[in-house]
Amino acid sequence: MKHRIVSILFIALITGGYCFAQTGQPGVFSITDDGQWQKTITTHRLAQFPKIHKDGRVWFQYKAPATAQSVKLHMGSDDYDMQKDSDGLWNVILTDPKPGYQVYWIIVDGTEVKDPGSDIFYSNGYRTVLEVPSPGEDFYLPKQVPHGDVREHWFYSKVTGSFRRMFVYTPPFYERDNSTRYPVLYLQHGAGENEVEWTHSGKANFILDNLIAEGKARPMIIVMNNGFATRPDQEGQTLTGNARWAAFEEMLINEVIPDIDAFYRTIPDRENRAMAGLSMGGMQTFTIGLNNLNTFSYLGIFSGVPTNYSDLLKDVLQQGPEFNQKLKLFWTGAGTDEASFINRQNELRELLTKSGIKAQYYISSNTGHEFQTWRRCLHEFAPLLFR
Amino acid sequence: MKHRIVSILFIALITGGYCFAQTGQPGVFSITDDGQWQKTITTHRLAQFPKIHKDGRVWFQYKAPATAQSVKLHMGSDDYDMQKDSDGLWNVILTDPKPGYQVYWIIVDGTEVKDPGSDIFYSNGYRTVLEVPSPGEDFYLPKQVPHGDVREHWFYSKVTGSFRRMFVYTPPFYERDNSTRYPVLYLQHGAGENEVEWTHSGKANFILDNLIAEGKARPMIIVMNNGFATRPDQEGQTLTGNARWAAFEEMLINEVIPDIDAFYRTIPDRENRAMAGLSMGGMQTFTIGLNNLNTFSYLGIFSGVPTNYSDLLKDVLQQGPEFNQKLKLFWTGAGTDEASFINRQNELRELLTKSGIKAQYYISSNTGHEFQTWRRCLHEFAPLLFR
Repeated sequence: MKHRIVSILFIALITGGYCFAQTGQPGVFSITDDGQWQKTITTHRLAQFPKIHKDGRVWFQYKAPATAQSVKLHMGSDDYDMQKDSDGLWNVILTDPKPGYQVYWIIVDGTEVKDPGSDIFYSNGYRTVLEVPSPGEDFYLPKQVPHGDVREHWFYSKVTGSFRRMFVYTPPFYERDNSTRYPVLYLQHGAGENEVEWTHSGKANFILDNLIAEGKARPMIIVMNNGFATRPDQEGQTLTGNARWAAFEEMLINEVIPDIDAFYRTIPDRENRAMAGLSMGGMQTFTIGLNNLNTFSYLGIFSGVPTNYSDLLKDVLQQGPEFNQKLKLFWTGAGTDEASFINRQNELRELLTKSGIKAQYYISSNTGHEFQTWRRCLHEFAPLLFR
Repeated sequence: MKHRIVSILFIALITGGYCFAQTGQPGVFSITDDGQWQKTITTHRLAQFPKIHKDGRVWFQYKAPATAQSVKLHMGSDDYDMQKDSDGLWNVILTDPKPGYQVYWIIVDGTEVKDPGSDIFYSNGYRTVLEVPSPGEDFYLPKQVPHGDVREHWFYSKVTGSFRRMFVYTPPFYERDNSTRYPVLYLQHGAGENEVEWTHSGKANFILDNLIAEGKARPMIIVMNNGFATRPDQEGQTLTGNARWAAFEEMLINEVIPDIDAFYRTIPDRENRAMAGLSMGGMQTFTIGLNNLNTFSYLGIFSGVPTNYSDLLKDVLQQGPEFNQKLKLFWTGAGTDEASFINRQNELRELLTKSGIKAQYYISSNTGHEFQTWRRCLHEFAPLLFR
């Protein structure tokens, strides 16, 4: 889906009802607020922009130095020219931004800057983001239901030789009844993110709060670690193949899981332990999960079937239908707009089906390699766990 | 304290031992790494800069577009010219950055940008920060001691008509013994920050973990709310005087405290409830705390004695020494480099002393209106609570 830049003329054509203070200069941006614009969820408290119109258009405004020659907004894979208004501020209106969590930035004479009006997202560095409402989808928004806490939990890893932080979602009522124990989902981010983003961008906590309130998912604990882990002696090395995840696997299995089982009221057995992840986290789930079937009995791969999936499945394929007894759920999902992951998911389906191995396959419509796909994946996957 | 820019010549003069690949062009930056440089605590995983030298100098590097004419680094109240090296990257070395959490940004031909190599801090928008080690001070660093969790706790406020997030530190061993109940410190950020920054920048959790491990502070819960709260009908209004905190006070007293006392294992009485804050949060503590002595019995004002302190104290001063029975601790602190707050703290001391009212006054050496002052304030204040 392409965003379109709306020229003043075009706005006039499609919406009407605006007052235009045309200054006569070509390219000067000028519309009058019709009272239908409001700040987005991700607009900063002190900022007035970005604003979203009731009809779905989003209006960005940026203050560049007076000497700036060219100001553009970058979203998706497109650059949009911004236009100066009579106050010297640069503006652009996008008519149909894609729903969900959209990463963007502004480019001032070739220099990438954050939009100071928007929230920040961690994606191999910090980027600005816009949360675009998705008509008919509210499963990831906070609702008037009991909320679980998301805990920042610190530990010292001997494997990496460093203090590390994980995030732990404890479900609603975890504090109320001190005798109940809970199953655990280990949930991993992708190569661009860190341990924060499954709740910050992915809204994992609200998705589970809502599913639990509707009785659609079992109350569970979710543990989110940083998927980048290297031993001190690997610092600066470029690791390839399975070696990339070796230190993470060792830390997860030997340090994180025992810590979680000691600290929180978990049900500490494989029947009550799942692993899932998005993109790189999906590849880690595929690799580490299959390698640790005595630890996990549910696996979820979100946009993350690895390129070497057939190598990793060699043992599994040899076992054939017998393997179905060893894993309660083998689940993959991807978005229609990320062809390589959809293709690999389809190839995987063919391969597994041929060998009589059960798995579930989900396709998210009109989303790509982005959080809207992964929010939906979690929303589909979580209800299937621990049944 | 002024930072000095180090020219190549100056580095050669003060340190020696560098290999200079001088290109002959005046102003070209060029030093060879002597192996004594390493990434700072706040340097991004994928970045190589900023780097800190064993001697305390910090080296920043930024990649600007080839067309950039002027690149500067802004820290404190100074701009430092950055110099191009032979790869076209812009560099500057600061010889004596101030210890603590230092906010900075880069200016490319007048446009403010974040340093993509550094962590992000929320200060009325997002800024880059550098954590500069403070020789002899490690009370705020993570240590090999039991760690409490920092919980993101969501609630719906009827006062503001919105979902809100607070952060709640539960002390080490909170999970272990389900019968123990804890006193609570309500801790507020300043006008620049939000509910994240007392743990993210202030390291409140590590400060308490360390104090508790050393037996210097009682295990306590800390609750950190966003101090900006407005009723829906106040949206867009400019509030002055006590009206600025009215909605926050109502939310804190009628919604937050009952929620915390219901959700966590608190000791829900005034003897076990404290309030403190930095800057605006200190002014809120001064105002709301004195207004709710049936709720709080310890108050901490960090760089936050309000300008109208004598008006707010009218009742208190009339009571004279009798007031000492009503508050267990009235505590203020400020840094030597923030004259206005030190001055007001001194005036307050004089006023209270004259009226026979007890309070404690702390001065942080060589720090200004910044987190290094507030980290120290919390470190001094917390041990005095709930005794």
